[in-house]
Amino acid sequence: MRQIAVVGSDSELSGSVEKIAEGIGRDIAKEGCVLVCGGRGGVMEAACRGAKEAGGTTVGILPGLDKEDANSYIDIVITTGMGYARNSIVVSCADAVIAVSGRVGTLSEVALALNHGKPVVVVEGSGGISESVDQVVEGIHRAKPEEAVKAALDLI
Amino acid sequence: MRQIAVVGSDSELSGSVEKIAEGIGRDIAKEGCVLVCGGRGGVMEAACRGAKEAGGTTVGILPGLDKEDANSYIDIVITTGMGYARNSIVVSCADAVIAVSGRVGTLSEVALALNHGKPVVVVEGSGGISESVDQVVEGIHRAKPEEAVKAALDLI
Amino acid sequence: MRQIAVVGSDSELSGSVEKIAEGIGRDIAKEGCVLVCGGRGGVMEAACRGAKEAGGTTVGILPGLDKEDANSYIDIVITTGMGYARNSIVVSCADAVIAVSGRVGTLSEVALALNHGKPVVVVEGSGGISESVDQVVEGIHRAKPEEAVKAALDLI
Amino acid sequence: MRQIAVVGSDSELSGSVEKIAEGIGRDIAKEGCVLVCGGRGGVMEAACRGAKEAGGTTVGILPGLDKEDANSYIDIVITTGMGYARNSIVVSCADAVIAVSGRVGTLSEVALALNHGKPVVVVEGSGGISESVDQVVEGIHRAKPEEAVKAALDLI
Repeated sequence: MRQIAVVGSDSELSGSVEKIAEGIGRDIAKEGCVLVCGGRGGVMEAACRGAKEAGGTTVGILPGLDKEDANSYIDIVITTGMGYARNSIVVSCADAVIAVSGRVGTLSEVALALNHGKPVVVVEGSGGISESVDQVVEGIHRAKPEEAVKAALDLI
Repeated sequence: MRQIAVVGSDSELSGSVEKIAEGIGRDIAKEGCVLVCGGRGGVMEAACRGAKEAGGTTVGILPGLDKEDANSYIDIVITTGMGYARNSIVVSCADAVIAVSGRVGTLSEVALALNHGKPVVVVEGSGGISESVDQVVEGIHRAKPEEAVKAALDLI
Repeated sequence: MRQIAVVGSDSELSGSVEKIAEGIGRDIAKEGCVLVCGGRGGVMEAACRGAKEAGGTTVGILPGLDKEDANSYIDIVITTGMGYARNSIVVSCADAVIAVSGRVGTLSEVALALNHGKPVVVVEGSGGISESVDQVVEGIHRAKPEEAVKAALDLI
Repeated sequence: MRQIAVVGSDSELSGSVEKIAEGIGRDIAKEGCVLVCGGRGGVMEAACRGAKEAGGTTVGILPGLDKEDANSYIDIVITTGMGYARNSIVVSCADAVIAVSGRVGTLSEVALALNHGKPVVVVEGSGGISESVDQVVEGIHRAKPEEAVKAALDLI
């Protein structure tokens, strides 16, 4: 089954970013793909909620060792105990990576995804590093929120 | 959902060990638990086959980066690219660990599981390190094949 | 002892970038610090050569398992077998991180360094992501080549 | 330069085990090798003290992110933030591994060393898993304390 990673910050979201993340999670589920993420709050939680509402499957790859740190929409919890090194796992096990907003954590995931040769789609209008990372490195694709999952699937 | 790891060698199995591993996979699925493993052949593949026959969900945490290395009964593939360090992840994300036969790789997983404070059940009569590791370290539980999953659940 | 990481791409360098990297390695050694890096060629090799010429100590943290992959100016070789996840180790064990030129690998190291709360100095005029990453995330310091090590030490 | 790992528990040692670990550290330094270890107390600290008394170089590969967790005889501190997964790094970067006493942590390091194809020497009379692990897996060498480093070098 195809696995799509959603990366983005775990802090509180504006209403519009929350909606974007939820919609992307929903689209991933509707396309019959598994949603992979870092398992925490913010963008990850919103995307997982969207995926579960659409009957999808969600995987959370946590930095720590406590399963309780996963958001409540995660089906499969992978505790790693590896801290930020888990960012490499989140993107390596995805067929494509979609970034929504985000800060330095998300930046590391986008960079590691490119290292791993994975297609990366940043969502227009979601703010954060997703708006500007394509000014720093090549090979990143931009898409509107409602077209992000389709764009990611086309790139696989 | 409860996650149970099955660890054991990925080499060709005797018919009796294959049957043991399949049965344990089936029991994990029947108990409504997710089967987690290293995603490869041998004991892992047999256990996953058993779990899928019983309608369960399987997760394979691979040492490499190629999803195609997973056995054909894996639902969720976590490629890590971390080699043997992935053994720590396999056991850290499980609520309990069941060892079937096995050699040095399995020995490292049993030891890492104990490091992580996880309940470990070794299956009697399965051969390999599962027969003797409890002579070297304390805190390991023995169970007959048909009682291994129940023993693991009782220990969680 | 203080440990300073030098990050940058492992591809062939222009003469000017090579000189910059060598100079930074030399300055790290002159300040009595250990130079930590990813152990490969390019910026890493040039910086290590500079450090060894000045009598310093160098550590190479390799993605793979083969010690022979280290450049010939590495004193201590840490093979990790963890692929890109080793990028997190390179920066986590440094008191400060200096980026010279670089592409996506370097971008991931800069982002991971910020995740780990490490001071990051990018070298002006070295090209690559070091010229532009501070347009994407906050908290990055710029310095001329000859002032980079002093800037890093001031930030620790 | 050759790198020899010393593995063993980080708890308080009996006087005789402390002496054994110190002697092995001293012998590693006298042979011109770098001592690699997990960076903590107990056997690791005693071995590092021995190595430093003989003018050697010591590397500590820590599970956590705090350099201050290293024992006071460590020259190069590699913080990993990867918990027990760091055990794989400790042994993968060594040309040979010497085990002194130890419990489950040491058992995982011995098993991971064998996974990585490294020569493993367990020290006779040091207690713990070093006395019995060779009953569980093949390919482990036994040596008296004063002959352990020579045995390890002969096996490289």
